[in-house]
Amino acid sequence: MRTNPLRTETKLEVGLAQINPTVGDFQGNREKICSYIDAAEEAELDLVVFPELAVSGYPVWDLANKKRFVLEGLKSLALIVRTTKRKRVTVVVGFIDLAAEKRGKNYNAVAVIRNGRIIQKQYKTLLPTYDVFLEEIFFAPARKHSLFSLRGISVGTTICEDIWDDPYPVKPAQLLAKRGAKLLINVSASPYHREALARRKATVLRKAKAYGLPVIYVNQVGGQDDLIFDGRSFVCNSKGQICFQAAAFKEGLFPVSIDLNSSARRPQTSLRSAGTDDVQEMYEALILGLRDYIRKNRFKKVVIGISGGIDSALVATLAADALEPESVIGVSLPGPYSSQHSLKDARALAQNLGIEYRVVSIRQPYARFIREAISDKRRRKVAPVEKKSITVAMENLQARLRAIELMYLSNDEGALLLTTGNKSELAMGYSTLYGDMCGGLSVLGDVYKTDVYRIAHYRNSLGKVIPDSTLRKAPSAELRPNQKDRDSLPPYSILDQILRHYIERNMSFDEIIKALAAKRISAGMVRRVLRMVDHNEYKRRQLPPSLRITQKAWFGRRMPITNRFES
Amino acid sequence: MRTNPLRTETKLEVGLAQINPTVGDFQGNREKICSYIDAAEEAELDLVVFPELAVSGYPVWDLANKKRFVLEGLKSLALIVRTTKRKRVTVVVGFIDLAAEKRGKNYNAVAVIRNGRIIQKQYKTLLPTYDVFLEEIFFAPARKHSLFSLRGISVGTTICEDIWDDPYPVKPAQLLAKRGAKLLINVSASPYHREALARRKATVLRKAKAYGLPVIYVNQVGGQDDLIFDGRSFVCNSKGQICFQAAAFKEGLFPVSIDLNSSARRPQTSLRSAGTDDVQEMYEALILGLRDYIRKNRFKKVVIGISGGIDSALVATLAADALEPESVIGVSLPGPYSSQHSLKDARALAQNLGIEYRVVSIRQPYARFIREAISDKRRRKVAPVEKKSITVAMENLQARLRAIELMYLSNDEGALLLTTGNKSELAMGYSTLYGDMCGGLSVLGDVYKTDVYRIAHYRNSLGKVIPDSTLRKAPSAELRPNQKDRDSLPPYSILDQILRHYIERNMSFDEIIKALAAKRISAGMVRRVLRMVDHNEYKRRQLPPSLRITQKAWFGRRMPITNRFES
Repeated sequence: MRTNPLRTETKLEVGLAQINPTVGDFQGNREKICSYIDAAEEAELDLVVFPELAVSGYPVWDLANKKRFVLEGLKSLALIVRTTKRKRVTVVVGFIDLAAEKRGKNYNAVAVIRNGRIIQKQYKTLLPTYDVFLEEIFFAPARKHSLFSLRGISVGTTICEDIWDDPYPVKPAQLLAKRGAKLLINVSASPYHREALARRKATVLRKAKAYGLPVIYVNQVGGQDDLIFDGRSFVCNSKGQICFQAAAFKEGLFPVSIDLNSSARRPQTSLRSAGTDDVQEMYEALILGLRDYIRKNRFKKVVIGISGGIDSALVATLAADALEPESVIGVSLPGPYSSQHSLKDARALAQNLGIEYRVVSIRQPYARFIREAISDKRRRKVAPVEKKSITVAMENLQARLRAIELMYLSNDEGALLLTTGNKSELAMGYSTLYGDMCGGLSVLGDVYKTDVYRIAHYRNSLGKVIPDSTLRKAPSAELRPNQKDRDSLPPYSILDQILRHYIERNMSFDEIIKALAAKRISAGMVRRVLRMVDHNEYKRRQLPPSLRITQKAWFGRRMPITNRFES
Repeated sequence: MRTNPLRTETKLEVGLAQINPTVGDFQGNREKICSYIDAAEEAELDLVVFPELAVSGYPVWDLANKKRFVLEGLKSLALIVRTTKRKRVTVVVGFIDLAAEKRGKNYNAVAVIRNGRIIQKQYKTLLPTYDVFLEEIFFAPARKHSLFSLRGISVGTTICEDIWDDPYPVKPAQLLAKRGAKLLINVSASPYHREALARRKATVLRKAKAYGLPVIYVNQVGGQDDLIFDGRSFVCNSKGQICFQAAAFKEGLFPVSIDLNSSARRPQTSLRSAGTDDVQEMYEALILGLRDYIRKNRFKKVVIGISGGIDSALVATLAADALEPESVIGVSLPGPYSSQHSLKDARALAQNLGIEYRVVSIRQPYARFIREAISDKRRRKVAPVEKKSITVAMENLQARLRAIELMYLSNDEGALLLTTGNKSELAMGYSTLYGDMCGGLSVLGDVYKTDVYRIAHYRNSLGKVIPDSTLRKAPSAELRPNQKDRDSLPPYSILDQILRHYIERNMSFDEIIKALAAKRISAGMVRRVLRMVDHNEYKRRQLPPSLRITQKAWFGRRMPITNRFES
């Protein structure tokens, strides 16, 4: 029998505080959190929920093992707690709690705060350790699970993976349900990839139904190195139906009215607001990832080598969209085998985007270098192959002379060089180390070539900036006369299918042959593709952070370089 | 009561098969394993023990999740099993066993083989997930623990981490002892770092004593990307005393007689054979790591930019020692601020080593580039800073012009470029991305500058090759007139202490100040060093594999680039 004189409420006004924190910026994150708490109080909300590790930002990797980092976070949390004094709103916020034992690991935790006091703490139980997650390294799991009471309602709190309990023997959400929870909170930092939202909903809605609990799911938003967090926080009822869905890739306080008695599906916003168009999604994800890397690392400008080709055109467009066009410098670096139309297309793109545009030729330095190489070989009595053919060394040289110019500009003007290579090329090693692979951030490193085109077309549909001829012409590195990608690679439509099967679905050679049987792709071609992927591991090892948009990015794929196995 | 008519033996002739496998080379590894089994049979040994995952090599990372990889290993194991038919020797060999459930993880396993049959399998229970280990990602843990019988003796088998049981609730070695094991085998792939042997012995000997079991500890030897496995397999008695210690960094079948009744300490080889001299150890580790990277990736030649400075001199020396001098090309690339003595020292080094030596000046390309940059700025109505001072962009340019020459040679002649930067420099970002950071393998990336000197002196004590002036002169990048490292960095003796505290011991700013109080190091200097380490994370993200010799190499350190925290 409840002794509380108040009747148990069934209605709650909840704020989903879908914030974009910066890792290690305790002050900035705290100010943001406090301003959201103020807004929630102002709006007379009962509850405001922040994402996983909102106090420090997520992921923190080895920072979680730095005691000073944890203490700094606890100080920040204490200041947050203080600001809740004499406020009515209950606050749920993610932070790192200090290890129970001296040499133990710390906890990925949530604090429930009310009126100047932490009324409950809950640690994370299930520590994802796969793909881009390595939490077993950094955190200790929860051993206890408890509830807190909100206007007479028993509420259980889980942290991200806690609700993805299928592969684990312990099921924290189920435990909390058994202890009498009537409402479940899940604070998350769940990164975007193209299948993320569908999987997330499928899992969380299924769990809501299985455990008979409405779920408030709050996800972080924003870019952090390779990872892009998409937000899209939501609320579902105990029947596993979505009642509210917050915007994708946008920071904000999203207020939702929850009625625990009503199981009716009452969407409070368009369920399509998150964008079911996967091309638009990729575009918005890349914009956010790019903008946040620049902003959080305090760059003012970016520089991009624009060749007239589709990859660099898309990167320049994304940069101009993510930042101000004035913050973007495009440089064309025509070489001995660059076509006139390439330069024309690059110039047209720059004009369309309104970005600064420069041209620096590498023809003379290239010719001089080759002349020197030839006379050096003659001095050493070696036959100069450079007289007869264009070697790989000569192709790479062109890419590297461009990189030298771009890096000089980058260092001289403090502009971050953006890397333009796409996932299909990086997979095949169709890229030059210290050449076109140079840069502080790889924007398209996880975008297949066919998707590069799709995103470019989508962007042009919002306002045409990428020239038609860039979209139409056959891809070419222009490192030798009349070179076309299709001369040395399968058509991208086929290549990308093979790559998806191999990289994302982890299929073997035989499985890929079987899966693509209807497409009449030769076994020899598949074999060649897989070999090239394997053989070029060494190049990808030196890739800068590369914005992740697929379920298996290079960052979450761990392959030895020294490896004689053929898949 | 035993029904076996034979008396229980107390003496065993055991072979420690300390082999150097190549990851994914199932045929090569199998041929090696079979030849060791033949040798063991020939020598009338009772038992021959191979390292962890000997069939596939270790570590395999994501390859462990490829079904074809596991099946290939099982095929290889079956062939090994077949060769044991009608042999007397019992074989213990590490392999990957297929998951019990369809979508489950596979097992890191050991097979005990006798006379054409696998008589027992044991899976690994404790899956290390920290530092350079991520086994929770790749393997499922053992749930069962059993023994096998060898000439009437009950033998338990553990795999590597299984015996490092302090932090774990489950203790496989203890379980096996309780089930009646009289002898414990541990098959390992335990990588070298400077404290590795001491820790390994301290732990294994303590466990031998605690569980009252003699231990046969067999470790892999050889290089695999960043990691160097040092071998130094050993046998200890149940009192935790070493009876036999195999050589460091060397492949071989080491036969040992074990008497289970005798607890006398009977060293069968010099216990110092492993080299207690830590400088010699580092030297030998680097040689092995370098040689195996070259050999296993099938390079025939390496190229090194030799500046006359200590780092490149040591890398060239290690390369000449690890390979044939004929396989090493040294190139001096004098620039506008290179001193005459540097060129002289580089030439002397090359002569001493007997390696090919070339000189390629970057003075003209540099002067031309700067002239172009100035006239380009004038065209754009920008004041050319290049007229007045030597900027960071201009310093980096020199390093990058050198890299272009070296990479041209590398591509043209198929010679792997070795990276020469040391750990102290990489920590401080005192290195140029796409300049001196170029290369396929970083040889000294985990070697502090003070250790670079120690190793160089040690090598010279075996036969003088590095010129005195290289050893004596103040370190300088020679990227501006009269530049010395000490102008912008603390003395290396102090810097390295700060770095060790920060990187290896994970100390905070306050803790470092306290630890170094007696040295009167200014707080400002410590703060500056830590900031530089943090700020240069982005450069290290693009570092090639870097041979690991300390307990915390870059490879096992996971820090976000986007990070506003100050330690």
